Amino acid sequence: MNQDTTTPGSLRPGGRTARVRESVLRAAGDLLAERGFAHLDPAEVAARAGVGKTTVYRRWRTPAGLVADLLTEMAETSLPRADTGSLREDLLANARLVAHTLNDPRQGKLFASLIAAATADPTTATALRHFYDTRLTEWTPCIEAAATRGEIPPETDPRAVLSAVAAPLYYRLLTTGDPIDDHTATLAAESATLAAHSGLFTP
Amino acid sequence: MNQDTTTPGSLRPGGRTARVRESVLRAAGDLLAERGFAHLDPAEVAARAGVGKTTVYRRWRTPAGLVADLLTEMAETSLPRADTGSLREDLLANARLVAHTLNDPRQGKLFASLIAAATADPTTATALRHFYDTRLTEWTPCIEAAATRGEIPPETDPRAVLSAVAAPLYYRLLTTGDPIDDHTATLAAESATLAAHSGLFTP
Repeated sequence: MNQDTTTPGSLRPGGRTARVRESVLRAAGDLLAERGFAHLDPAEVAARAGVGKTTVYRRWRTPAGLVADLLTEMAETSLPRADTGSLREDLLANARLVAHTLNDPRQGKLFASLIAAATADPTTATALRHFYDTRLTEWTPCIEAAATRGEIPPETDPRAVLSAVAAPLYYRLLTTGDPIDDHTATLAAESATLAAHSGLFTP
Repeated sequence: MNQDTTTPGSLRPGGRTARVRESVLRAAGDLLAERGFAHLDPAEVAARAGVGKTTVYRRWRTPAGLVADLLTEMAETSLPRADTGSLREDLLANARLVAHTLNDPRQGKLFASLIAAATADPTTATALRHFYDTRLTEWTPCIEAAATRGEIPPETDPRAVLSAVAAPLYYRLLTTGDPIDDHTATLAAESATLAAHSGLFTP
C-alpha cells in the first residue's frame, strides 16, 4: 500500500487511479462499439469519462494505447474457465460463453471493432493476440484434465481444441453474418469434442 | 453485342468499360491491402488506375461503392469447386484454397481489410455476405454429392459443413495470428469431414 502513495499512476484497487482507468476504458469501449477505431478520439473519451483531456493523453497517449489497455483490462476481468469433469460439457460452456459475448449488442460490436482495428494497427494486433493468449491459457486446464482422465490423447494441443470451438462463432460474426444461436454453439462444442476424442488435435 | 454499343457502361468483355473496371478494381484492391478502408481515396484509385477521377466518382460514387464492386468481381472470378468423388478430398481442396488465399500477402491483407471495413460500413457488410454466399453456393454440390453417395445424412446442412472448414483459418488470420499452415488446413477439413460423417451438421 505504501507503494501506491509514492508511485504516481500505480493501480490501487478502488483508488482514484483505478476509478479513472475504469471510467476511461468504459468510455473508450463504448465509443469503439458505437463507431469503431477510426473515430476513437481521446478527447471525446475524456469528456465521456468525465476526466481531463491531459489525463487521457498523458496516461494512454494514443487511440492504440487506449485499445491496448482496454484489451488488458478485458483479459483481467474475463470469466474463469468451466470445470465440469467432462470435455464435452467444458467445451459447451466455452462455446456458450463466446456466443453470449458475441451476441451481446455492445460486446459483439466491441469485438468486431477491436478485430477490425488489429488488421490495420500493429500495436492493437499485438494486444489482441495477447488477449486471446490469456483466454486460451485460462481454458487450457480443461483440455489437460480431459487428457488426464484418458478422454483424449495426452499429446492433444489445447490451443487447437479451443480455437476449433471459438472459430465458427467468430466466423459468423465477421464474415457470413449468420446468427450465432445455441445450435451453432452446441455444434461447435460437439465437433471439437468429437475431433479431440478421435485424436485429430495431435501433432 | 448490339446492346453493348447502345447501352452506356455495359460490360463488354475486353471492351474499354471492362478494362477500366479491371484497372480501377485492381488499384482499389491494392490500396485496401496496403492501407485499409479508412484510407481508400477514390481520387488515388483513379490516379493508380490511370483513369480520370470523374470516371471513378461517376461509376462507383464512394469508397463503399468501390468495395462492393470489388467483392462482386472477386465472386465472379473466384475458382470453381473441387469434384474428387470424396467428401474428405473435396473439403481438403476447399481448406487448401482458403489457406492459400489467406496466406498470399496481398490477398490475406485484402480479406482482412474487407472484413474490417464490413464491421463499420453496412454496404460493405452486405457485399461481403453476398461474396460468402456465392462461395458457399459454389461449393454446396460437394456436400450434396456426398449425401447422394451415402457418405453423410441427406439432411446435412452444406453451409454449416463449409463454414466449419473455413472458420478455423479465418480465426487465425483475424484473432490469434497463429500460422495458417498445411497442418491447420488438413485439420479443418478432417474435423469437418468427421463431424459430417457423424451427422452433426443436421438440423
